[in-house]
Amino acid sequence: MATKKELRIGLIGTGFMGRTHSNGYNRVPNFFPELEYTPVLKAVCSRNAEKVQAFADQWGYESIETDWKALIARNDIDAVDICTPNDTHAEIAIAAAAAGKMILCEKPLSRNLAEGEQMVEAVDKAGVANTVWYNYRRLPAVSLAKQIVASGKLGRIFHYRANFLQDWTINADVPQGGTGTWRMDLEAAGSGVTGDLLAHCIDTAMWINGGITDVSAVTETFVKERMHALTGKVQPVGIDDACIFHCHFENGSLGLFESTRYARGHKALYTLEINGEHASIRWDLHDLNRLEYFDHSDESIVRGWRSIHVTDGDQPYMDKWWVPGLGIGYEHGFVHQVADFLKSLETGEPCSPTFKDALETQKVCEAVINSAKSRSWQDTGVEWTEK
Amino acid sequence: MATKKELRIGLIGTGFMGRTHSNGYNRVPNFFPELEYTPVLKAVCSRNAEKVQAFADQWGYESIETDWKALIARNDIDAVDICTPNDTHAEIAIAAAAAGKMILCEKPLSRNLAEGEQMVEAVDKAGVANTVWYNYRRLPAVSLAKQIVASGKLGRIFHYRANFLQDWTINADVPQGGTGTWRMDLEAAGSGVTGDLLAHCIDTAMWINGGITDVSAVTETFVKERMHALTGKVQPVGIDDACIFHCHFENGSLGLFESTRYARGHKALYTLEINGEHASIRWDLHDLNRLEYFDHSDESIVRGWRSIHVTDGDQPYMDKWWVPGLGIGYEHGFVHQVADFLKSLETGEPCSPTFKDALETQKVCEAVINSAKSRSWQDTGVEWTEK
Amino acid sequence: MATKKELRIGLIGTGFMGRTHSNGYNRVPNFFPELEYTPVLKAVCSRNAEKVQAFADQWGYESIETDWKALIARNDIDAVDICTPNDTHAEIAIAAAAAGKMILCEKPLSRNLAEGEQMVEAVDKAGVANTVWYNYRRLPAVSLAKQIVASGKLGRIFHYRANFLQDWTINADVPQGGTGTWRMDLEAAGSGVTGDLLAHCIDTAMWINGGITDVSAVTETFVKERMHALTGKVQPVGIDDACIFHCHFENGSLGLFESTRYARGHKALYTLEINGEHASIRWDLHDLNRLEYFDHSDESIVRGWRSIHVTDGDQPYMDKWWVPGLGIGYEHGFVHQVADFLKSLETGEPCSPTFKDALETQKVCEAVINSAKSRSWQDTGVEWTEK
Amino acid sequence: MATKKELRIGLIGTGFMGRTHSNGYNRVPNFFPELEYTPVLKAVCSRNAEKVQAFADQWGYESIETDWKALIARNDIDAVDICTPNDTHAEIAIAAAAAGKMILCEKPLSRNLAEGEQMVEAVDKAGVANTVWYNYRRLPAVSLAKQIVASGKLGRIFHYRANFLQDWTINADVPQGGTGTWRMDLEAAGSGVTGDLLAHCIDTAMWINGGITDVSAVTETFVKERMHALTGKVQPVGIDDACIFHCHFENGSLGLFESTRYARGHKALYTLEINGEHASIRWDLHDLNRLEYFDHSDESIVRGWRSIHVTDGDQPYMDKWWVPGLGIGYEHGFVHQVADFLKSLETGEPCSPTFKDALETQKVCEAVINSAKSRSWQDTGVEWTEK
Repeated sequence: MATKKELRIGLIGTGFMGRTHSNGYNRVPNFFPELEYTPVLKAVCSRNAEKVQAFADQWGYESIETDWKALIARNDIDAVDICTPNDTHAEIAIAAAAAGKMILCEKPLSRNLAEGEQMVEAVDKAGVANTVWYNYRRLPAVSLAKQIVASGKLGRIFHYRANFLQDWTINADVPQGGTGTWRMDLEAAGSGVTGDLLAHCIDTAMWINGGITDVSAVTETFVKERMHALTGKVQPVGIDDACIFHCHFENGSLGLFESTRYARGHKALYTLEINGEHASIRWDLHDLNRLEYFDHSDESIVRGWRSIHVTDGDQPYMDKWWVPGLGIGYEHGFVHQVADFLKSLETGEPCSPTFKDALETQKVCEAVINSAKSRSWQDTGVEWTEK
Repeated sequence: MATKKELRIGLIGTGFMGRTHSNGYNRVPNFFPELEYTPVLKAVCSRNAEKVQAFADQWGYESIETDWKALIARNDIDAVDICTPNDTHAEIAIAAAAAGKMILCEKPLSRNLAEGEQMVEAVDKAGVANTVWYNYRRLPAVSLAKQIVASGKLGRIFHYRANFLQDWTINADVPQGGTGTWRMDLEAAGSGVTGDLLAHCIDTAMWINGGITDVSAVTETFVKERMHALTGKVQPVGIDDACIFHCHFENGSLGLFESTRYARGHKALYTLEINGEHASIRWDLHDLNRLEYFDHSDESIVRGWRSIHVTDGDQPYMDKWWVPGLGIGYEHGFVHQVADFLKSLETGEPCSPTFKDALETQKVCEAVINSAKSRSWQDTGVEWTEK
Repeated sequence: MATKKELRIGLIGTGFMGRTHSNGYNRVPNFFPELEYTPVLKAVCSRNAEKVQAFADQWGYESIETDWKALIARNDIDAVDICTPNDTHAEIAIAAAAAGKMILCEKPLSRNLAEGEQMVEAVDKAGVANTVWYNYRRLPAVSLAKQIVASGKLGRIFHYRANFLQDWTINADVPQGGTGTWRMDLEAAGSGVTGDLLAHCIDTAMWINGGITDVSAVTETFVKERMHALTGKVQPVGIDDACIFHCHFENGSLGLFESTRYARGHKALYTLEINGEHASIRWDLHDLNRLEYFDHSDESIVRGWRSIHVTDGDQPYMDKWWVPGLGIGYEHGFVHQVADFLKSLETGEPCSPTFKDALETQKVCEAVINSAKSRSWQDTGVEWTEK
Repeated sequence: MATKKELRIGLIGTGFMGRTHSNGYNRVPNFFPELEYTPVLKAVCSRNAEKVQAFADQWGYESIETDWKALIARNDIDAVDICTPNDTHAEIAIAAAAAGKMILCEKPLSRNLAEGEQMVEAVDKAGVANTVWYNYRRLPAVSLAKQIVASGKLGRIFHYRANFLQDWTINADVPQGGTGTWRMDLEAAGSGVTGDLLAHCIDTAMWINGGITDVSAVTETFVKERMHALTGKVQPVGIDDACIFHCHFENGSLGLFESTRYARGHKALYTLEINGEHASIRWDLHDLNRLEYFDHSDESIVRGWRSIHVTDGDQPYMDKWWVPGLGIGYEHGFVHQVADFLKSLETGEPCSPTFKDALETQKVCEAVINSAKSRSWQDTGVEWTEK
């Protein structure tokens, strides 16, 4: 067996994202055996020693830490994976960069633009490899959508629309803040659905369709007060429960985005649709192995939306998995991101989206929040350079 | 206004099919103005004078009869339309042919093969135009399926499958016999789902895919006894509640057919699918404006089932209706059949399916019933000549 | 046969809408025999005598006119049906009201708010029955959606969204102006997709979810110049090719609307979705017989969106048509509107949407256009009173 | 960390199924940390030393063997996992049982009934734990279907239908025999689609709906000759390319099964549908996270098929994975089977389907093949006891 180069991982945070990332590291050796690098799960960090040890046992981490600064200080760690709530991203990332660690940071990059700019500055100065876990890009159907648009099949793009609809916070008894519900707390999360859900939609959109130049948004907080899980007090809710915005892209197309946690019946309905001069594409996370495609050049009497089951070996990433017709799941996007990050170490190319790319998404989020507050159009200042 | 030639209609039967046919006659002048012939609703016949008068008023018939023999005897009637229960088709049709009337007979042609043969003999001898209302052929999506297969796009056919699933007789309180439920009575109907529902599937199948040569069937009667609506007595149920058969077509393909009135959740789920060497087709009556089509010659990464919304002017019959995207309904198949019958009077070509064509469907039905009874394969004797 | 009261119709305009309305008048006697009133097709009017005569022959009008003022002046006409381009609605309607005629006006009510206000004033002053053909309301699935929301099943409403996507003007060779393409001409149409398509969405939305209070919109004209069909000259395009807006409803819910004629692959994709506290609803014109419904009170392990095939006798209007499972089409919405208008003559109740109701939709359209021009939120001034 | 009991695995075969099983062993510790037992990948066996070493490296097996008898002889192996072609199942399993090893055997159990009977006898005599990898049972949606039927929600069952449609052998250049295509070779596989695909459908069917008593089948071999990959000679094809059968279940319901590798457009379309007196269920492998459910007791105006996205924590196995709305894939069925096998070692209960259960499926397959050959109904002799 050829000896692999090791990428020694230190994971900070053991929540939902800690699990998805850990699974990614564990699966890559089985499904991407050709890579030069292999992840080694060196350490995992969380404040509660007992819980973090159980997590380490479950996922195969060699050791634990209860202080993230201690983890960053270790010499046997090459890369720090940040899976903690948003309000800690900047501090940890800046410290990790200063310590010369590569960084894999959970999205959104930061709570706000100012934090994000500091983070980009930190990794640029340190010259460390970095990436942000916008995992949906690497679902095969979404990657195929990117490939199709890049190939020119759609021609001039007229419309890009996406939404991300959930329904888990309709119950007014859901608290804000605390371990499982920090996403409801403005201080911890930075924003509500905008940073949590729309950030995904924006990242995918700019990756496929280029920069967003200006936005006009509305937000709403349907339940005005919730108990805070840490204080036990009923407090005003600061986050946006729902956010809608329309926008222009640099290429002249119109964009339309919506997210809410109050769409009864939708668990995680991330959908996107792109309408071009010659063809259109749409996708739905609830049926993530399918891509729908309409090609106007088909013979007219048999023209229709094609339901593509993206499970063939010539479709993105699918040569790694099973046989045609046998679908994969949500978690595989993370496996693919680990594989692509390892591959980037071989090639020396950045693993997109980098902090810089993710900062552009922050610019849009910031403009969206500002637009909603000011009831006015806002320029984003986005300079999208990723291809 | 150019004077139209008249086709003077005498309708016998005022039930569900009396309504669909009457609607067909009424709509053709509005949507097919180019036809030389126009239907004139001369008379309608049913036993109850009051009810038939109400029907005549509603649908625009000029006069009524309460004895079908009187209707047939009238000189001002060119064509007799038979919408009565199956047990009367043969007698009426044979008499109408003898009187020199054209005949439009509701499906199935007859209760059994022997009756059907007499009917074919009668129209042949009389030399009168004739047709059977297998209405689903003339839904645009089904006509398009025929056109696609005939064009050779599918190549060699491997599989043809169809089913017709309903759930309206699960309740054991549904009676057999009588006005609304004669289809549950063996004497009146000749068979259960085989003649009522599978006959449609078989007609479409042979029209598209050629003759069925032999069959192996199973039938079931789930509710063994029901009250008879005419006698009030609980009697054994003679009809087939469900029927499944597989078969061979002349072209070497395998066929699979199923019908039941015990498929909870399906109101009138007539579906068909055809798998060929190069392409496949499927259709579903519950979404009757759509045809699904898969073409293996599409570029592999964007290959998938196409959902064709059959509402464009270059698709069968659709130049007569609205604009793309705006669907039509069940009733339009009957309108199209009226139009095609009128057109056949212009051209002198038969209006398929003729009695002869429908007799071939009777042969399959007869073989199916015999196969189920004998638990053995049965040859059908079909000689399919319609193209 | 009981003698019916006559509603003597004079139709102005013989285009697409002239056909749909004429079909409505022709079908009602067959399917709504219980009504006291019956439409009588007294006259049809269009400028070209030969063409209007052909139309009269096809649809059964007793006479023709080539000057709409002559039609309005006739004593044998009770109701004027306006199917002409938008720029003529106001003048004809005001004259018809002054002549004491009932008015059935094709939507949108007018090109702009000012015209609409004059029209409402005219019918109010004249005291004549009036209605506007927002036909989609009366498709059974849409009527069922209204019924479900009105019943309270959804609880508090959080979101209403609708779109109307087409693709027929992507080709830059489509002209503006003229007989078939007046909808592309600002002078004739008043606006582009806003008045043509979004007006439908807004009418349905306010009918179901109440008044829209303020809007923020963006519009786009993708093809900047087109030949004018009447002048032959290439001229700037004045209409909106696409329009997106978000808004608030009086009940506190957020609205999101989009329309375009540049969504490749969509012929007439009118969809709507409503998310409430307890349940959600969605509908799609391309599958117009279906309504999707999600009820959170269903047992959790078997909870999911229900696909309701709205073809049963206990669902709106469906007792008039066929049997469960057998769908109807686009045209039936117009038949239902004729029936409801005739019924309103019996009861003396207005037939919604009246001119007054449709004016509220004009207010939203006007605010949308103004918002897009000024890049700012606009109050609509809507006072929605219809229930 | 609590010390786990080890289940030391010896895997024989490194093809497609070798990969799915190995993935199962690797993932269980991450997702089922509560289990007492943990799999240890002790050895993997295949004839080519170089290839098997690469496989061992990729999947984490500690050692390799090139002779399965050597593997069985090892003392450090508790359980043998058989992933080799069907013609080796019996010999290996019988030897493994004699060596006192637990056995996890890939489906179908055997090429034919006689072999299967010997295998059952062998494990019974040895008293070793055993299971057969009918993986589709343990997809959450399929497990939920079982749970729903078992709960009595459907009432009396009328119909069970399933099909498994593929299209990968339409090309006549696909060879028979050899490493990747032994499924095309009668000697190696025992049968074609019957043992490969229908066996899955039959296993699920009897698990959910009880024993199949008698069958009537037809098979077809569309491409009569293919090159044999091992000999290079064109030889007659012995397997069934397609197989259709109808049948009776012990509970009186009718069954309908179809499989083919000639259904253009279907990669791995395993669907099933069950119609009961009160409710119905259907499922489709191409959208494996969804279950459709129709409940007739729903209020009639809002009654329809429910599309259940089976991704909530109260649905089978889903508490182990992500959050609602985030789907899993094909491979997870194998992970669940490993988990259930480990659990069975804790409880001492058999892990269904055992060899005995799988033998019942072999009885049906044998009767199907015999029925097709003899063109007659065949009794199966099934005695289904698993609940």
